[in-house]
Amino acid sequence: MLGCGTVGASVLRLIEQGGETLHERVGARVEVRRVLVRDLDKARAGVDETLLTTEPESVFGDEGIDIIVELVGGEQPARSFIERALDQGKSVVTANKLLIATHGPELLARAVTAQVDLAFEGAVGGGIPIVRTLRDAFASDRLTAVTGILNGTSNYVLSRMLDAGLTFADATAEAQQLGYAEADPSMDVDGHDAAHKLGILAMLGFGLTPGGDPMHVEGIRAIEPVDHRFAARFGYRIKHLVVGRDHGDSVELRTHPALVPERSVLANVNGALNAVLLEGEALGPSLVYGQGAGGMPTAVSVLSDVLDVARSIAAGAPGLQTRGIRHTERARRAMADVESRYYIRFRVLDRPGVMAQIATALGQNEVSIEQMLQDRLPEVEGGPADVVMLTHGAREAAVQAALEALKGSAILVQDPRLMRIQDV
Amino acid sequence: MLGCGTVGASVLRLIEQGGETLHERVGARVEVRRVLVRDLDKARAGVDETLLTTEPESVFGDEGIDIIVELVGGEQPARSFIERALDQGKSVVTANKLLIATHGPELLARAVTAQVDLAFEGAVGGGIPIVRTLRDAFASDRLTAVTGILNGTSNYVLSRMLDAGLTFADATAEAQQLGYAEADPSMDVDGHDAAHKLGILAMLGFGLTPGGDPMHVEGIRAIEPVDHRFAARFGYRIKHLVVGRDHGDSVELRTHPALVPERSVLANVNGALNAVLLEGEALGPSLVYGQGAGGMPTAVSVLSDVLDVARSIAAGAPGLQTRGIRHTERARRAMADVESRYYIRFRVLDRPGVMAQIATALGQNEVSIEQMLQDRLPEVEGGPADVVMLTHGAREAAVQAALEALKGSAILVQDPRLMRIQDV
Repeated sequence: MLGCGTVGASVLRLIEQGGETLHERVGARVEVRRVLVRDLDKARAGVDETLLTTEPESVFGDEGIDIIVELVGGEQPARSFIERALDQGKSVVTANKLLIATHGPELLARAVTAQVDLAFEGAVGGGIPIVRTLRDAFASDRLTAVTGILNGTSNYVLSRMLDAGLTFADATAEAQQLGYAEADPSMDVDGHDAAHKLGILAMLGFGLTPGGDPMHVEGIRAIEPVDHRFAARFGYRIKHLVVGRDHGDSVELRTHPALVPERSVLANVNGALNAVLLEGEALGPSLVYGQGAGGMPTAVSVLSDVLDVARSIAAGAPGLQTRGIRHTERARRAMADVESRYYIRFRVLDRPGVMAQIATALGQNEVSIEQMLQDRLPEVEGGPADVVMLTHGAREAAVQAALEALKGSAILVQDPRLMRIQDV
Repeated sequence: MLGCGTVGASVLRLIEQGGETLHERVGARVEVRRVLVRDLDKARAGVDETLLTTEPESVFGDEGIDIIVELVGGEQPARSFIERALDQGKSVVTANKLLIATHGPELLARAVTAQVDLAFEGAVGGGIPIVRTLRDAFASDRLTAVTGILNGTSNYVLSRMLDAGLTFADATAEAQQLGYAEADPSMDVDGHDAAHKLGILAMLGFGLTPGGDPMHVEGIRAIEPVDHRFAARFGYRIKHLVVGRDHGDSVELRTHPALVPERSVLANVNGALNAVLLEGEALGPSLVYGQGAGGMPTAVSVLSDVLDVARSIAAGAPGLQTRGIRHTERARRAMADVESRYYIRFRVLDRPGVMAQIATALGQNEVSIEQMLQDRLPEVEGGPADVVMLTHGAREAAVQAALEALKGSAILVQDPRLMRIQDV
């Protein structure tokens, strides 16, 4: 095992608790041989100190080690460690989302060449068995769409804004106090973490090589409490989503906040939980849901991978599952061509002609309005008002053109706020 | 393949559509050698007629066949077919819920002896990958509780009663017209189908040998539209649930309608869908959800099993996954000892002293009331009224004793209606 933080210590604990049952399930003994750490003196409750080493050589030089569990995280030295292990014919289990999202294809190819496994259930959705669901349960189906809540921090912040009426800043501060958000929360609340995970799911589900064209990534910073209230009045909740669709000729991938119907299952995934809704051609809709982060849930995923890989090795057939993962370069659908329904909030000066101006801009771009609400802001008597529209289905380019036409208009107090509506 | 109904024909279609990808994923060719049917003359669109046979010998006598897919259903001859296949060293994939729930232990033992696999993902929850989730993803965790919606027919009927205000009889008739319910719906609406599935999940999740003590099984026939309205006023929805809990010293298993909080994910699983909420000691809560029945979804599960088993055979290690399933006789918690909160509806004559009589019966049995609503039936001016109480946590035996004390009382127009509250 490389690295022994929260996840690593939890893996060791689970192996100890599992005892004989684990060995029986695998058909061979699962034994931790070495744990590579940076600092031998750090207190690690419950970890057998005789296993610890600071010398990579004592891991890579040991031919009795069959599986490397990489929990160092980040780009380097994790990447070199994994490459070295694979080249030596050792299978690798990792929870390193960044590496799989950015270097997955090369690493998988290396594993296939070496005829070993590279397993990464822990890299997406913590304890949710999404990788094995896409790899095994969907092996005989064709995935047409994936819609997910994959960032627990954003989901927690949005839940608190809705339930307690907090601002983005206050809800984020609370998440930081509770350990749900990092000191610098930008990877989470700006959508990058979710985008990495979507890239991995798209590889497994759509056979799309990750990387390639940049995808549309949008976070939750611009959402105000008033948006939650309007969404609720229309029967929706705001969630930060990843969305993928296979159109046959192209694949659509995007990450952004969206309105989802309040009675949908996704709308009711609250707090730091994650969920992924899959649409299979034969299976129809299915969903997996659970703890998207945390030491123990991630450790369960990591150890499940270890047991899978160990079982294959014990049976004399390592690498079979990894060989089943196939991906190619595929065309991406440009964001401008994506079709969606939209929520648009205009903060306007309350004077005659305002509605006509907005309606004209939308109409000229063939964006048609389905529902509308207007509300004066309670705090400002005679001040600006919010006009909120839900549109019928429209192309992203058309909606953006309509907003562009209104930009700088004297009637707008701030730039229009746009969110997509996802009817899941 | 034994049997070629809706599921069987869908499996054949998926194999054809899958083409080379399937073979590549397995590392060997997946080929259908024979399809045993009862009647050669029945029209089967898209099925290669040269595969059909009515002679079991031409299947069991063929040594080139490695895997038997049993889709005959029911007790016999399905059971003899499976036994014969296992004894011959052929692996078996089945969607036969009844056989696994009632004869699972013997059949699994036979598979282990023969060193082959007996796979049954299709037997529980149609297209939902619940068997592999419990077997693989939970391999390194300890399952503490399972709560599920496992009967699509009951869920459809309850959804329609709530959404359209239909009676049980009308909603069931509609389900029959749409093909969601059988001509005789009792297996579904009386809870037996869900109970079989719970038995299988308890074997996989709690290591409990199925069969044994009878479990508490209750269907949805007694629920009236008024119960849905009261549940909604308290913030709940009525769902037909399976509930399992591992108390360490004993296992609690029960199947019945229950009130679930309207914002919970389970409350929002509507129509013919299924969902299973799992609680792992390390994983915390997780949920899988999808099409619980139907030819195509079940076929995806069956074929996923075929691919798994074929991969093991190709790797020269059949039977490994089945060997990992362990179960023993374990003590069951008696229903009288189960603790729950309760919904109790009393239809009473509206006269002085009624409330005192009810409150006394509950109080004497130490059942304490948390909330109460009273409503006169709109249709009967001056007629009976409904008094609905939600209790705090209480033992089932205490609640039943309180109701027993009230039975036959002149104030009650009908027997009290009792439902458990499940806070999921």
